[in-house]
Amino acid sequence: MKISILTICPEMFESILKDHVIKRAVDLGQMVLNIMDIRSFADGCYRKVDDSPYGGGFGMVMRVQPVVDAVKAADTGEMNALKIAFSPAGTPFRQELAQEFSRADHLILVCGHYEGMDERIFTHVDKTVSMGDYILSGGEIAAMAVTDAVARLLSGVLKAGSLEEESFSAGLLEYPQYTKPAEYLGEKVPEVLLSGNHEAVRRWRQEQALERTKRLRPDLLVPEQAFSSG
Amino acid sequence: MKISILTICPEMFESILKDHVIKRAVDLGQMVLNIMDIRSFADGCYRKVDDSPYGGGFGMVMRVQPVVDAVKAADTGEMNALKIAFSPAGTPFRQELAQEFSRADHLILVCGHYEGMDERIFTHVDKTVSMGDYILSGGEIAAMAVTDAVARLLSGVLKAGSLEEESFSAGLLEYPQYTKPAEYLGEKVPEVLLSGNHEAVRRWRQEQALERTKRLRPDLLVPEQAFSSG
Repeated sequence: MKISILTICPEMFESILKDHVIKRAVDLGQMVLNIMDIRSFADGCYRKVDDSPYGGGFGMVMRVQPVVDAVKAADTGEMNALKIAFSPAGTPFRQELAQEFSRADHLILVCGHYEGMDERIFTHVDKTVSMGDYILSGGEIAAMAVTDAVARLLSGVLKAGSLEEESFSAGLLEYPQYTKPAEYLGEKVPEVLLSGNHEAVRRWRQEQALERTKRLRPDLLVPEQAFSSG
Repeated sequence: MKISILTICPEMFESILKDHVIKRAVDLGQMVLNIMDIRSFADGCYRKVDDSPYGGGFGMVMRVQPVVDAVKAADTGEMNALKIAFSPAGTPFRQELAQEFSRADHLILVCGHYEGMDERIFTHVDKTVSMGDYILSGGEIAAMAVTDAVARLLSGVLKAGSLEEESFSAGLLEYPQYTKPAEYLGEKVPEVLLSGNHEAVRRWRQEQALERTKRLRPDLLVPEQAFSSG
C-alpha cells in the first residue's frame, strides 16, 4: 500500500524510518511512503498556508486552497485512495479503523493544525479521525501513529501469530507478560507461568485478560463477557 | 519543566525539535528534553533489553531490569518526578491529564514495546497511560504526543488567549473555523462570520460548538448541556 502524508512540516518525518515497524514494512515492499509539503501547493508569492479567522479570534487558520490542491495532487487516480484528516471532532481512531486503513490501496493523511483548519477542508476528505481527547499542535504525530498502527498489520511485518495475541484482537486487554528473571526485587513471576502446563497457562491468561478488562476498561466488554464468571 | 524520555530507540527522536511547539518550549527555556537509551542500562555483555515470555507465546517481552535501572537513573531526586509508562491497559490520555502533566517538575516517560513489557515494570511508575484503543509498536510516538500536548500548555508557548478557545477547554468540541476566501469551489463562509457583529459571532460559535458536540460526541456533555435548547 501507499501512504501519502500531506504536511506543512515534512522535516518532522525525517526520522520516521527509525520506527522499526514502519521501516520493515517499507523494506518488505509492503508500504511506500510519500511525504508531501502542503506549502508547495499554496498560491501567491508568499506561499501562505494560513490566515486569520473570519469572525475574529486568536491563532491562525489553515487555508483551504493549498490543502485541497495537495490532496488532488496526491490522489493520482491509479489507486483507490482513502483520504483522512485529523481533528478532535473526528471519529475516534481504534484498532478496527487501523485494520480498515491497512486494507486501503492508498491512504492520504492530511496533517492540519488544530489551532484551526478551514472547515471546508473536511468536505474534501473521506473521513475525519481523532487520536483521542487531547490537543496536539498538528496532525503530524497523529499521522505517525496511524502509519505505525497500519504498518504492523501488513503482511509479513510481524511474526505470524503475534497479531492474534495482542490487546483488543479478542476485544480484551492483553494478559500480563513476564520474562526472566523469575524474581526481581522481591517480585515473583506467577507460578503457573513456570509450570510448563500449557493448558493451565492458556486458562490463566484468558482469566487475567478478562479480569483486567472488567476492572480497567469495562466499556470494552460485550454483555456476555461482562456477566461471565471468568 | 524537564521531560526525560526512556527508549530503546533514541534515533526516533532526532526530529522531535522540528515540532515547532516543542522547539518553542525548549527555546523559551520552559522545557528541557532528556532522551535516554534504555539499552545502556541493560546488564550483561549483550545488553539485551528483551527476552522470551514465561509461559510461551509469540514475540519478545521487555526486561524489567534495564527499564527500572533507567528510571532510577533518570529520577535524580533534585525534582519531583512523575513517572509514566504507556500501555493499552492504562488510563486514557485526555486533555486534563496533559494539564496535570504540564504542572510536573519532571516527567519521566517510559517507552515500552507493546508486544510485551514485563508486568513488574508497571509497579515502578506512578501512572500507566493509554493513547487510545489502538496498538502502536512502541511508546515512542505516544511519548512525542504527550510531549507536544504538554509543551503547548507551558507559559508563553502559545499566544495568550489561544488556549481558552480550543476544543475541550470548555468541555466541548471547537466551533468551525474559516479563513479567506469567502467562497471556494462554491462553498461559502457562513454570513454571520462576515457580519462584523461580534456578539452574533460569539453566539453562533457557542451554538455550533454545542450542536457539534451533541451530534458527534454526546459523551462529552454534562447533563445540563445535553438538555439545553442551544
